[in-house]
Amino acid sequence: MDFLTIIDYLGTFAFAISGIRLASAKRFDWFGAYVVGFVTAVGGGTIRDLLLDVTPFWMLQASYLVVTAAALGFVILFGKYVIHLNNTFFIFDAIGLGLFAVVGIEKSIAHGYPMWVGIIMGTLTGAAGGVLRDTLINEVPLIFRKEIYALACVFGGLVYYSCLFFDVPPTITQVCAAVSVILARLLAVKYHVSLPTLRGEN
Amino acid sequence: MDFLTIIDYLGTFAFAISGIRLASAKRFDWFGAYVVGFVTAVGGGTIRDLLLDVTPFWMLQASYLVVTAAALGFVILFGKYVIHLNNTFFIFDAIGLGLFAVVGIEKSIAHGYPMWVGIIMGTLTGAAGGVLRDTLINEVPLIFRKEIYALACVFGGLVYYSCLFFDVPPTITQVCAAVSVILARLLAVKYHVSLPTLRGEN
Amino acid sequence: MDFLTIIDYLGTFAFAISGIRLASAKRFDWFGAYVVGFVTAVGGGTIRDLLLDVTPFWMLQASYLVVTAAALGFVILFGKYVIHLNNTFFIFDAIGLGLFAVVGIEKSIAHGYPMWVGIIMGTLTGAAGGVLRDTLINEVPLIFRKEIYALACVFGGLVYYSCLFFDVPPTITQVCAAVSVILARLLAVKYHVSLPTLRGEN
Repeated sequence: MDFLTIIDYLGTFAFAISGIRLASAKRFDWFGAYVVGFVTAVGGGTIRDLLLDVTPFWMLQASYLVVTAAALGFVILFGKYVIHLNNTFFIFDAIGLGLFAVVGIEKSIAHGYPMWVGIIMGTLTGAAGGVLRDTLINEVPLIFRKEIYALACVFGGLVYYSCLFFDVPPTITQVCAAVSVILARLLAVKYHVSLPTLRGEN
Repeated sequence: MDFLTIIDYLGTFAFAISGIRLASAKRFDWFGAYVVGFVTAVGGGTIRDLLLDVTPFWMLQASYLVVTAAALGFVILFGKYVIHLNNTFFIFDAIGLGLFAVVGIEKSIAHGYPMWVGIIMGTLTGAAGGVLRDTLINEVPLIFRKEIYALACVFGGLVYYSCLFFDVPPTITQVCAAVSVILARLLAVKYHVSLPTLRGEN
Repeated sequence: MDFLTIIDYLGTFAFAISGIRLASAKRFDWFGAYVVGFVTAVGGGTIRDLLLDVTPFWMLQASYLVVTAAALGFVILFGKYVIHLNNTFFIFDAIGLGLFAVVGIEKSIAHGYPMWVGIIMGTLTGAAGGVLRDTLINEVPLIFRKEIYALACVFGGLVYYSCLFFDVPPTITQVCAAVSVILARLLAVKYHVSLPTLRGEN
């Protein structure tokens, strides 16, 4: 198991935990919490793969199901203490966001799409799972109102393509883009950076 | 029209009725109720077919539209008496669940997917239409909080693959799996079997 | 830029505006409003393209992203006055509905589908974006309860296939179908034509 796989599973675990916790706040049963956790973790990548017309990534290996099961077991066993790990999960979540964004961009490039499609796919991979999660638990999607989240993926995408433009080697490009997403996200939360809200008319 | 087709249409009818009734409780108009009924009936199979990258089954024959129209006509004409048929619809719904789960499993196998994908596809075919229905009417999905529903499909999937493992003939395998789903569902409702709920943190 | 393209962009603009305004009423930030506007504008066509198994149209040219950005800029700059333009946007929206329905029908025919699939695809292209919009902002879909909207697309589809049946030339067929949708929609709103509501049981 190489480094990237470990990060992938950590990100999946953190995304699944966020879905399971919000589902449990709505008094979902174990199965419902598992489904919401799984959708949170793989939903963004699934939308991406449907749009790119490739087999959804989680249908090719069972590991995402297993990681989600581990997340559910974790919340069941350590539910009371999970709240003390908020900062840990927040870090995992940001790391997952950065990794997922890069994965989405590279999959778009592999299928011959231009830059702007790549940035959309990176952002969908990172952020659309959370939107599906909030739809399933019948809440207004959090990412449309809180600190910068999806926009961090857009920023990382711009960094990625800037690196491509200057012929930066692939590995460094990936690291730069992922770190940009993670830093943008961490700084946004630390300094409560949000976008302006539109003023409603009524 | 063979036996399986009749069961398929009965299941579709029961699923459509459940969508139409919930839509009418939200004061949807006839068109809205028709759409919710149709999505409830074919939504799970549609998600399955999109994931498997095949043409959605209802685009190949108009009969599902017709069955949904019949369900709408039925509710319009006999709305007041429908409530007395709750037990009948519940039986149809359980039978549809069992049949749909088996259809989903076999379509996955036909496309070369392993057991765990087949079980997911069977469960999606049976249960995802109800989740889409609840999303459209803006309610928290029922199946994540009430008596065992989707899990009955998972159980039926395990029975199906156990039969495969022991070289049981195809028809008996199908019947065993479908009956397992139906029995699991009926017993769960009769004895109010639910999964544990996760305790929310706040 | 030909006439059809201009109408396409006007329709996209009107659809995006409707998403952005409803998002702003829910206090979404700029990014959230942009996403809701974009989903409203391209969501119906995206569902159609996924069902038809072709690349979603907006992934082939960036113009829909640009038109949505223009719509967001417009609401940010002229938010206070937008309400006075309600009638203008309503006309654009109806024109977009007519055009989108015709586009959906023709794309289905190009892929060899029968009439009833074409009518569904035309209706999805015109009306499904609004359903996705209402799901994202966590409201019950408006089109299931208000004046005739999706049904105008069904009507336009019937007109389209009637023209085909009588060998009307393609351009006249398109215009007749689109105008039918637009007129049906305008008259429905002017005279408050709604479908009957189903009486809930409880």
